[in-house]
Amino acid sequence: MMLSALDLARRIEDGSLTPAGALDLCAQTIGLREADLGAFTIYDIARARMFAERGTAALSASPLRGLAVGIKDVFDTVDFPTEYGSPIYRGHRPASDASAVAMVRRAGGVIPGKTVTTEFAFMQPARTRNPHNREHAPGGSSSGSAAAVGAGMLPIALGTQTGGSTVRPAAFCGVAGFKPSYKIVPTVGVKCFSWSLDTVGFFAAGIADVAFAATAITGRDLRVDRATPAAPRIALVRTSAWDEASPDMQAAIEGAARAAAAAGATVVDAELPPAVVEADAAHGVIGPYEAYRALAFEYDRHRDQLGATLREQLDLGASISADAYDSARRTATRARRAFATLMAADADVILTPSAAGAAPHGFKSTGTPTFNRLWTLLGAPCLNVPGLMDANGLPLGVQIVGRFGRDHAALEAAAFVEQAIARR
Amino acid sequence: MMLSALDLARRIEDGSLTPAGALDLCAQTIGLREADLGAFTIYDIARARMFAERGTAALSASPLRGLAVGIKDVFDTVDFPTEYGSPIYRGHRPASDASAVAMVRRAGGVIPGKTVTTEFAFMQPARTRNPHNREHAPGGSSSGSAAAVGAGMLPIALGTQTGGSTVRPAAFCGVAGFKPSYKIVPTVGVKCFSWSLDTVGFFAAGIADVAFAATAITGRDLRVDRATPAAPRIALVRTSAWDEASPDMQAAIEGAARAAAAAGATVVDAELPPAVVEADAAHGVIGPYEAYRALAFEYDRHRDQLGATLREQLDLGASISADAYDSARRTATRARRAFATLMAADADVILTPSAAGAAPHGFKSTGTPTFNRLWTLLGAPCLNVPGLMDANGLPLGVQIVGRFGRDHAALEAAAFVEQAIARR
Repeated sequence: MMLSALDLARRIEDGSLTPAGALDLCAQTIGLREADLGAFTIYDIARARMFAERGTAALSASPLRGLAVGIKDVFDTVDFPTEYGSPIYRGHRPASDASAVAMVRRAGGVIPGKTVTTEFAFMQPARTRNPHNREHAPGGSSSGSAAAVGAGMLPIALGTQTGGSTVRPAAFCGVAGFKPSYKIVPTVGVKCFSWSLDTVGFFAAGIADVAFAATAITGRDLRVDRATPAAPRIALVRTSAWDEASPDMQAAIEGAARAAAAAGATVVDAELPPAVVEADAAHGVIGPYEAYRALAFEYDRHRDQLGATLREQLDLGASISADAYDSARRTATRARRAFATLMAADADVILTPSAAGAAPHGFKSTGTPTFNRLWTLLGAPCLNVPGLMDANGLPLGVQIVGRFGRDHAALEAAAFVEQAIARR
Repeated sequence: MMLSALDLARRIEDGSLTPAGALDLCAQTIGLREADLGAFTIYDIARARMFAERGTAALSASPLRGLAVGIKDVFDTVDFPTEYGSPIYRGHRPASDASAVAMVRRAGGVIPGKTVTTEFAFMQPARTRNPHNREHAPGGSSSGSAAAVGAGMLPIALGTQTGGSTVRPAAFCGVAGFKPSYKIVPTVGVKCFSWSLDTVGFFAAGIADVAFAATAITGRDLRVDRATPAAPRIALVRTSAWDEASPDMQAAIEGAARAAAAAGATVVDAELPPAVVEADAAHGVIGPYEAYRALAFEYDRHRDQLGATLREQLDLGASISADAYDSARRTATRARRAFATLMAADADVILTPSAAGAAPHGFKSTGTPTFNRLWTLLGAPCLNVPGLMDANGLPLGVQIVGRFGRDHAALEAAAFVEQAIARR
């Protein structure tokens, strides 16, 4: 049973719950499930509870209402060790909070702990399990944040996305994931992998919850009306990777499209223009080129402590020329323009898979970013819409992608699709 | 007497000098002048010399030839305290090197110390003096890097620019300053003030020296031919702030234009289109809005340890709405497009003042960024060209601004103007 941030906030508003009481709900589930799931690197409920109790009045009146917010362990925090998923930083204590962490505190969030990240938010699976079936992967790299929200251990968590690190784990864990437009939320104090691609992401139970969290933390009005979101114009985009999507996922997307249409949305099939399709490959150039520089210290001084998957990526980055990188950046710029033109003409949002299918069995992979990386490169707002399941009871996520800078419209459309799915 | 990085590198190449010998030249001048100038926060010549001696062969063959590179104290370094010019971080020891610092080490640079920055690279003057007259300001915020190169204590130094923090101190200290196109050099591990504006900058004796340093550190071929740089098409842009420039500065710019024309350049007067002019004000919105978030931890937890100038800027940032910020970003985007169009049609580079005049007397100010902030906002490559003096023997810098991404052309044009000035 997930914790709806919006419902908890309403109860705190009407006085039927306190921030400390809301934290107790988290603590109960953490007590029941954390040992099995391994979503946290560290937590301190007693300290968080003391903070929540002492600040009850101010927190209750704050934008986040004193709700608990889990922080992926790539964000610097002064009061918890910050290890970036790497043995190089075992026990590391940053001197300051990341900007987004300070913004959570400003908004009245209570931080009970840090959530598991893969090594430097790259692809090597970490120890977290999927809350729907612990023999399955939670997805990465924001594994702990997605699993903690999916298990009902937290109402809100922060993650990041460079390829698909917010949308994919959100899909696998059956929660709402929101990667806003590039640069709306600062990545200052977040361990950098790629300065052109890294984006802060939000996790919560449903779309209205994640919109509530993003509104409170960013100070932008991103709230959606849970009762009657506006009917969007939706472009169903299968992308060239459609054949890689499982039959379940293909059926989920097409079912979501039918449900949205039945609920009043305009749904059309659309293909991406060549200038956008070409940009998918640019992600594979920009990411490793920048990572080889962003992680220069770790690569040069602690290579033996890097995982093989990451080391290979950084080796690749070392082999990419500045010309190839510049060319990839130009490709990305052209793609952003072509995407803006497409969206202005044809649709408010795109509907497309959040991942190739449900969470894979076993822990060899965090899943592939095939259905995510292009949208990250475009800087567009992306959401995982939860609510569908496969035959085994594992969540299947459908993705809404909006226009750059039109985050509110993307959230509204995602809320509409979420409702349409629920009412089928 | 400044140290030419290119000359030292040539001598190391031909075997007439070793990296340790080059460091001795720095050490001599540091011994003579540092006590008066206060350009360093800390240095350790003995350790740097040991490192240079042990690595003589490898360093001599490296891109930077083992030359000394000073690092502004907003870049994280593992082997020197990093204080960001703030008492909040007294004695702070980062866990990793900033990317640009690691790139300096990769390129074979030897780091003898950290150079003075103003508080978080903002406007409050620090203790550094101008090497041409210690009763005058060195400019900020990269005060120590500019003064150390200007005094001949270092052949190369790194700084940053958010408003005019590279070009202005370079102008005041009579050295070449190069702010590359936005995002060519990562700001990862540099204390953030504004994530949209902060840019890594380079200081060296002359344009060919700064081009050598930037080539070695970035791995891009930015070298200029000191003998025969190509004749550029130059647009002389007085900007709406021309009346704020001193008569000396106005004469310097017009003299530089005449000298360039006499040497074969095409020089035309040009005015900026309204879409570009309007963007100047956007800098004053984007900067404080982002700084209030980038420095959220410091503002919320250590406000009493912030200087009054900075606190006022952050208070201003707190008052700016997301709508105003988004509007300023759109203005900046439009200005970048208009600037690209202008440059494609009319000129390779712009010639304009680096600052309002020579270094001001006294230490009340680091100078104004009036002649710098627009170019930073446009993300364009900017150079201070040294070589001119006012009647009091203080340097007067002229600025070359290039097209975004055309850093090599900007360096070539700056080298051309530098020569034209020298040959008058």
